[in-house]
Amino acid sequence: MKVETKIFNFEDGIDLENGTKLSSFELIVEMYGELNEDKSNAVLLCHAFSGNHHAAGKNDEGLIGWWDQLVGPEKAIDTNKFFVVCCNNLGGCSGSSGPTTVNPNNGEIYGSSFPQVSVVDWVNSQKMLTDKLGISKWHFIAGGSLGGMQALQWSISYPDYVLKAGIFAAAAKSSTQNIALNEVAREAIRKDPNFLNGEYIAKGVKPKDGIKTARMLGHITYLSEENMDLRFGRKFQDADSKISGEVDFEVENYLQYKGEKFSESFDANSYIIMTKAMDNYDFAKDDDTLSKSVRNIKASLLIIGFYSDWLYPPERGKEIQVAAIRENINSSYIVLEGEQGHDSFLFKTEKYEEAIKKFID
Amino acid sequence: MKVETKIFNFEDGIDLENGTKLSSFELIVEMYGELNEDKSNAVLLCHAFSGNHHAAGKNDEGLIGWWDQLVGPEKAIDTNKFFVVCCNNLGGCSGSSGPTTVNPNNGEIYGSSFPQVSVVDWVNSQKMLTDKLGISKWHFIAGGSLGGMQALQWSISYPDYVLKAGIFAAAAKSSTQNIALNEVAREAIRKDPNFLNGEYIAKGVKPKDGIKTARMLGHITYLSEENMDLRFGRKFQDADSKISGEVDFEVENYLQYKGEKFSESFDANSYIIMTKAMDNYDFAKDDDTLSKSVRNIKASLLIIGFYSDWLYPPERGKEIQVAAIRENINSSYIVLEGEQGHDSFLFKTEKYEEAIKKFID
Repeated sequence: MKVETKIFNFEDGIDLENGTKLSSFELIVEMYGELNEDKSNAVLLCHAFSGNHHAAGKNDEGLIGWWDQLVGPEKAIDTNKFFVVCCNNLGGCSGSSGPTTVNPNNGEIYGSSFPQVSVVDWVNSQKMLTDKLGISKWHFIAGGSLGGMQALQWSISYPDYVLKAGIFAAAAKSSTQNIALNEVAREAIRKDPNFLNGEYIAKGVKPKDGIKTARMLGHITYLSEENMDLRFGRKFQDADSKISGEVDFEVENYLQYKGEKFSESFDANSYIIMTKAMDNYDFAKDDDTLSKSVRNIKASLLIIGFYSDWLYPPERGKEIQVAAIRENINSSYIVLEGEQGHDSFLFKTEKYEEAIKKFID
Repeated sequence: MKVETKIFNFEDGIDLENGTKLSSFELIVEMYGELNEDKSNAVLLCHAFSGNHHAAGKNDEGLIGWWDQLVGPEKAIDTNKFFVVCCNNLGGCSGSSGPTTVNPNNGEIYGSSFPQVSVVDWVNSQKMLTDKLGISKWHFIAGGSLGGMQALQWSISYPDYVLKAGIFAAAAKSSTQNIALNEVAREAIRKDPNFLNGEYIAKGVKPKDGIKTARMLGHITYLSEENMDLRFGRKFQDADSKISGEVDFEVENYLQYKGEKFSESFDANSYIIMTKAMDNYDFAKDDDTLSKSVRNIKASLLIIGFYSDWLYPPERGKEIQVAAIRENINSSYIVLEGEQGHDSFLFKTEKYEEAIKKFID
């Protein structure tokens, strides 16, 4: 599989939804496969909260992309047929402009001064990327969770640019409980003594403890209760492999390990920006009803929910389809078993693969 | 209603389930109503994780007891008829021996040296209290959540001492997800720089931030998703009443407020001990099956679950009843709507009150 990684610079900047302007910015992008002559085979993947541009294949650090099970030669999203694009979102911490990069206006690391971006801003910045790539219509735009929100918003913001949209394990807006859980995670980060109101990079420290606690909580919400029971049950962690003396059960050790690892690589300000973008997203906020928002969609929608997902349960996807049906938007709604809870959107199953393949071909 | 608050001293100490011995200890107890002559009208209430001995009425600080809606004159548990007893559990922080009290062996505050107690230890210490009160059979022992686990364990440990047991919003053991959520809360506490490995009292500080984050998370698990949606939805907090600048939504403000308030009164080491006791409880751990554990129960069981409870959903109560039925134990299992999620066990509804009244009369 041909993999190209490229940084695109947008010198004119972007007007953000919150009324401020980001004066100039960069997006780091991975591209797989070849764009055909009439540019009709382009696919855009939108990443979830802690994902990035590395969607498929193995990168220089040996890491497998977040959707590698479904994206690649002869996979559900076949890179032999499609030219597949994925960028790290604005405000992220994997190479696009965000809290860890330098503000070109003053030569200093943005830190907490990086503006609060939104799903709409991401879609607008991806549209600017689309123009640079010379693509006038995406054959397919897809993502799971927060990525699904972007696919949905693309169909609303740029109806002529989207032929088909895949909205997986997503919702038209975050629920009260979603917001509440994110706020606990943010609280853990903000109260880390190394957070320093977000100016930790300038001070040469990192609020690792806060990020770790936040991620441990996140992990619980990504897995289903059944899945956790099956994997860990009430098994005790054997003494030799305990991460710390406080750990008794295997599930505690697992969360400690995952949280610790994540805290080494992810940025705290990005964590806050990304979760706030998720909380703030409300597909219908500018209109009276969900229906009004979907009225202008021209894309066909494939909405997939997973039974075991308690973060964005299938009913949330159903709401999108109900609105689509009312407005005569072409849509399919499928609920799959999904053994992995919310994370199910990341994993290949026969039915999931088939649903995507059939929809995009 | 006659309210008596008394501290009972147990100078001979108690052998704990973990193999250590607590050499001498105190229990603070509230008592309502009058014990009748043949001592046949005694009711024991067991409190949940963050509860205490103040179950009913108004105390000197003007606080209403945790079960006041159901305990009092002519209420479901009628203090005109019954002599009702509730103690703060060992390891708590409301007056019984625990991490905030003085270790009589060395004259120092226990802090993190207070031993890890268990549901079985609580039941054993309550049995010692029972002997001091001269009660040879409780007419009714009841509690919700962790309190329900104690009511259940009483029936197993001391079958001759329990006529009827009320097990509400409880389970025979914590699930993997229950343990995982508690571990996130503990992690937040342990990583508070003021926690100091649990020796914060000796150093004159308090890990308030950690307790606050832990409680914010706890709160989400006590409420149902539907209830949160109804109460807060996606409403924004008005600027004047924002607790902090980071808050956008009402639900965030509510959690911040509740967490902050709780962090002022609750002890961090108690938080850890209480949640570990909850995680460690496994009703059937000494036997092959749940059935074997219930075999010796002589009490009649009233098991109540609440549909909206996602912490200990009704299925968990059902497991207890299935085991009881197999062993011919007299039991009733009721599932109520319960609009308040896990916290539903605290609130009076007509059906809930009627079920309890009918069962104990």
